[in-house]
Amino acid sequence: MFEFTLEATAGAARAGTIVLPHGIVRTPAFMPVGTHAVVRGLHPDDVRRTGAQIILANTYHLHLRPGEMEVRAMGGLHQFTTWDRPMLTDSGGFQVFSLEGLRTISEHGVEFQSHIDGTLRTITPEISMEIQWSLGADIAMQFDHVVPGQAPHELATEGMERSLRWLDRCRSRHAELAEGGAAGQTLWPIVQGGTHADLRRRSIDGILERGPWTGVAVGGLSVGEAKPVMHRVLEDLEPVLPADVPRYLMGVGFPADLLEGIARGVDLFDCVAATRNGRHGTAWVHDGRVNVRGAALRSDRGPLDPECDCETCTTFSRAYLRHLFVAEDMLGLRLVSIHNIRFLVRLAEQARAHILDGTFDRWSRDWLRRHYARGAT
Amino acid sequence: MFEFTLEATAGAARAGTIVLPHGIVRTPAFMPVGTHAVVRGLHPDDVRRTGAQIILANTYHLHLRPGEMEVRAMGGLHQFTTWDRPMLTDSGGFQVFSLEGLRTISEHGVEFQSHIDGTLRTITPEISMEIQWSLGADIAMQFDHVVPGQAPHELATEGMERSLRWLDRCRSRHAELAEGGAAGQTLWPIVQGGTHADLRRRSIDGILERGPWTGVAVGGLSVGEAKPVMHRVLEDLEPVLPADVPRYLMGVGFPADLLEGIARGVDLFDCVAATRNGRHGTAWVHDGRVNVRGAALRSDRGPLDPECDCETCTTFSRAYLRHLFVAEDMLGLRLVSIHNIRFLVRLAEQARAHILDGTFDRWSRDWLRRHYARGAT
Repeated sequence: MFEFTLEATAGAARAGTIVLPHGIVRTPAFMPVGTHAVVRGLHPDDVRRTGAQIILANTYHLHLRPGEMEVRAMGGLHQFTTWDRPMLTDSGGFQVFSLEGLRTISEHGVEFQSHIDGTLRTITPEISMEIQWSLGADIAMQFDHVVPGQAPHELATEGMERSLRWLDRCRSRHAELAEGGAAGQTLWPIVQGGTHADLRRRSIDGILERGPWTGVAVGGLSVGEAKPVMHRVLEDLEPVLPADVPRYLMGVGFPADLLEGIARGVDLFDCVAATRNGRHGTAWVHDGRVNVRGAALRSDRGPLDPECDCETCTTFSRAYLRHLFVAEDMLGLRLVSIHNIRFLVRLAEQARAHILDGTFDRWSRDWLRRHYARGAT
Repeated sequence: MFEFTLEATAGAARAGTIVLPHGIVRTPAFMPVGTHAVVRGLHPDDVRRTGAQIILANTYHLHLRPGEMEVRAMGGLHQFTTWDRPMLTDSGGFQVFSLEGLRTISEHGVEFQSHIDGTLRTITPEISMEIQWSLGADIAMQFDHVVPGQAPHELATEGMERSLRWLDRCRSRHAELAEGGAAGQTLWPIVQGGTHADLRRRSIDGILERGPWTGVAVGGLSVGEAKPVMHRVLEDLEPVLPADVPRYLMGVGFPADLLEGIARGVDLFDCVAATRNGRHGTAWVHDGRVNVRGAALRSDRGPLDPECDCETCTTFSRAYLRHLFVAEDMLGLRLVSIHNIRFLVRLAEQARAHILDGTFDRWSRDWLRRHYARGAT
């Protein structure tokens, strides 16, 4: 069960609707990250009330804890977590290639040491598919060879070409798994190639030769390269990405990134910054950022962001939020995380509305100018 | 605005209704503790959904952070926290007498070092009243001289007699503060005297001579003495406590304590154990206790307590709760705290229903037998 309808465009920006086994996602959309089958510190009801339509969970982390067979025995991720809307799982590629210490990469796959108990584990394209199948998300991602952000041409070529070969293996194993089941999980490929235009082209060409696909992701960005470099990669890719499937920019999702990405044809985003910043007491607001610990908030009866409609902003004062952080009560982390997620979810909702009514360009420029005015990133 | 109606009795056990400025409390009732103007880790909505009718906040902690004048500037504790039901503040006595290190007790009051920034502070009966008045809870407690649990007769006498003298000063200052305002805060005295029957009698006699009061608290229990000793003190006091006001047993509230206290005429309880145990992954259940981290829960699809109607038990599996604790996600702490609070709130609700229909004794005995069967405390 998978459909995508493109409803409107504004330049490269797109508004669409994805139909998945667990529900509908109207795009552009931001996906909160639920690394350990929980959006850090938040109840599924908290996340639902932010308007999030789909969340992401991490294959690497869930493989190690509690283990995909435990999740499967509980009825899969949806039943285990009680999150009943769409979910996407990443492939574990990004995590295992980011691991410090023992890690052996071969054509077969990646052998690594668990960061939890030190045991040796292996993830191959086939194993990644098996884990994701057991987890049971609506969308599974291919296992890819991720290279550092500013990898030279040779290394980026190796990663890109291996990712294509691994895509073949992922597709075969995923098709075998899907034969027996009615779960309707779909598999998405990932464009690699670092910051090298020729490699990105070869990557997407290779992916499309192997198609058709129900969606396509762009990986290996926002990993240390400068923003204009990321923008150029997206601009180069945009004309060659298929228009009739959703495009997912992996691991990207500061407020400005959303608008810059949407303007370059991206439909889906995910990023841990919303909850990570929330835990550290940094809130995105329309005028930039607020440090919730700041002494200036001590007697501030106003909301975190006067223009925000989230539960936190419509309920609590800045003074109370600051007090919670100063008193180190975890309610503070939760309330700011809820705000930050709603901020991104709503920004995507607003972008969608402006794409649909033909005012995206101007609105987006004004929004970015205002948000950047005080040096926010 | 203060009324108490005694609706029914069953032996010494009582069912009543307290009317306070911010709402009604049907007794017996358990009060969750919101030390820093927040029930640790919980949203006011979480607490409301447990059925809690009244919460307690700590004068000592709020005096130090954020300071009572900041709370007052925010409109008082109710507006600051958005908790719109009744609240009670303790006097700070228990905390300053429990402080390690520098602490000088005199007839004037207690000088102590802030545990946060080391500054020297003083709380006197008058200052305690002023702080509590600024915080603006429905019920303020007298500043009392608290002695250790098994204090000898001489020391317990000193604390008890000083508490009576301080009660006079509290009442005077509270009356002055109340003259100007319409807040309707009421002041309750605290019975002291350690484990010495004669001192407890002299304490309540002294309190009643100074009356009338709208409620009376029993302090200095559950501070190290054996349970039977606490029970004896309550039994000795019960006949001499006024029947027409609520009786509050301070700092007591394990499940069995509630039933034992109710059987001895107590109407109100508070205790941090519900949230502290919640944070440590210990859940009270009808059959005793569950360690949420336990390996036995790994594949357990059942609720924490099959007989519980709380949000946690009606939503999540034991396996997911265990996963949250193992993955160290703070949602786990919150879900078990919610369960533990609901467990105590509901136990008091059930006790009330059984007092009203005349079945309290038998129900209470059966409940305790079952709960104790596996060694729970």
